[in-house]
Amino acid sequence: MDKRQIEQIVASVVGQTGEKRITLEQAKFLMERVEERAKEIGVKAVVAVFDSGANPVAVHCMEDAFLASYDIAFQKAYTAVALKMSTIQLKGLSQPGGALYGIQNTNQGRIVIFGGGEPLVHNGRVLGGLGVSGGTEEQDTALAEYGKQIAKEAFSWQ
Amino acid sequence: MDKRQIEQIVASVVGQTGEKRITLEQAKFLMERVEERAKEIGVKAVVAVFDSGANPVAVHCMEDAFLASYDIAFQKAYTAVALKMSTIQLKGLSQPGGALYGIQNTNQGRIVIFGGGEPLVHNGRVLGGLGVSGGTEEQDTALAEYGKQIAKEAFSWQ
Amino acid sequence: MDKRQIEQIVASVVGQTGEKRITLEQAKFLMERVEERAKEIGVKAVVAVFDSGANPVAVHCMEDAFLASYDIAFQKAYTAVALKMSTIQLKGLSQPGGALYGIQNTNQGRIVIFGGGEPLVHNGRVLGGLGVSGGTEEQDTALAEYGKQIAKEAFSWQ
Amino acid sequence: MDKRQIEQIVASVVGQTGEKRITLEQAKFLMERVEERAKEIGVKAVVAVFDSGANPVAVHCMEDAFLASYDIAFQKAYTAVALKMSTIQLKGLSQPGGALYGIQNTNQGRIVIFGGGEPLVHNGRVLGGLGVSGGTEEQDTALAEYGKQIAKEAFSWQ
Repeated sequence: MDKRQIEQIVASVVGQTGEKRITLEQAKFLMERVEERAKEIGVKAVVAVFDSGANPVAVHCMEDAFLASYDIAFQKAYTAVALKMSTIQLKGLSQPGGALYGIQNTNQGRIVIFGGGEPLVHNGRVLGGLGVSGGTEEQDTALAEYGKQIAKEAFSWQ
Repeated sequence: MDKRQIEQIVASVVGQTGEKRITLEQAKFLMERVEERAKEIGVKAVVAVFDSGANPVAVHCMEDAFLASYDIAFQKAYTAVALKMSTIQLKGLSQPGGALYGIQNTNQGRIVIFGGGEPLVHNGRVLGGLGVSGGTEEQDTALAEYGKQIAKEAFSWQ
Repeated sequence: MDKRQIEQIVASVVGQTGEKRITLEQAKFLMERVEERAKEIGVKAVVAVFDSGANPVAVHCMEDAFLASYDIAFQKAYTAVALKMSTIQLKGLSQPGGALYGIQNTNQGRIVIFGGGEPLVHNGRVLGGLGVSGGTEEQDTALAEYGKQIAKEAFSWQ
Repeated sequence: MDKRQIEQIVASVVGQTGEKRITLEQAKFLMERVEERAKEIGVKAVVAVFDSGANPVAVHCMEDAFLASYDIAFQKAYTAVALKMSTIQLKGLSQPGGALYGIQNTNQGRIVIFGGGEPLVHNGRVLGGLGVSGGTEEQDTALAEYGKQIAKEAFSWQ
């Protein structure tokens, strides 16, 4: 086995197990794909990407999006990383009587409990989060899920 | 083509393409009309006007209004611009189980989800927002809608 | 002694000793005089009036004023009431080494330590505060002092 | 001259003199140019663009930038719009003893008083703001000024 072959094996193992962060390039790629789709369906969206440390990587506000959508998209991406689940899943858990009812008041009001935030996952690890705000809840949820799917395909995440 | 015809064309093009902001004079006019109406129905109101960038233009507090009404009227005007809808519409969407339930906790608590905030709209564009607080929800909603109607008539908005 | 004479005596005594608040009408009168003067000297100001309970009465933002000036004028009016002194007086006290150095960090950041806030005083009692922001510190201070003087003259305050 | 010709002339004049907002496309173009330059000089920067209403348009965080730089770049862009001046100019005014000393404590702590924030100006009007954080103050200031210059050239601003 030569040096190059060993390097490839090591790179492959590190790629599976090592810490990975979503890069700015990846974030921009994802956001632009989501923005294109948003345009197609007539939504003026704010799109945010967070990394695995629940810190922002990038945010884009499409022309004429709701001004309120900046905070909402931003915190949806935060929520998806911080709780390792989509905000549409969290919605069910945080209604009155639900297991996490009240979580919308903890964490300095950063937890969003309606659809449009998705964790970005590879090999069972959350590498980041994607938040979308600007359309109906269904549209935001669909756009965030679309972005998550794009990430899996484009970055060969599993 | 005479001067008047050219003026009409210019006004029409500017109305379609130019950005417009509600002016302080317009805000004062609106607030005073809403205050007169509030007096007539026995409400001591706080009235706030925001511009299209969700920044305040003016706020007036009638004698003996609720001290809490300052923040409420202020944030109702903010909400109406930031979400391009009235707060009474938002009320329906943000109840438990609703599409936007939890939005009252995002945006640093600036989103008001009960009636009394109306966007000020011209040619389909949000030029500002009007927030009223001090009476019952029905009264605040009626006063904000009254102000919105006054704006349309007085400023020839469409 | 007839009813009218008794009423005048009572009004006079109450005027000296009773709680007084600056009214919305008085606030609007003051703000408009300050706005006229600001226009004359080429300043685009935000002008705020607070009552004796350190609660806002009214705020006006002239066209094209600094967006930051809203908070600053608002908090100058607050500061003038809350500390019963002008913000230009406070400036001297709150520099490094000064008696009140650090006060800019208490009170949730509401204390402004540069000129443009003046208490509105009658018979030694603070009835309210006036805050102006938009010009140089000298201009803001002069405009607030002008408004204070106007109040004394127009409302026969002593 | 017919109606259509007049409309074209009017649209052109309005385009030159009317209110303009920086677009997401313009913001992305600017940020990418600043990021390229940052890479050349070895700075890992966060770059933020705000519009004329002091609302965010876009934010990008280069790999391995200071986590603190997100808020700093964001608020530098805010400050440049909200006070219509660069943060390096503001630095001089906000030192102990200066005219605006203490402004770092007003506005909910959103005012940044060190270099790296520049207003984006066209025809004497602030169309937006650019904030850069990640290098030394000199580097951040230079990068923000570079971006401002790029905007003037690329968008034919005057």
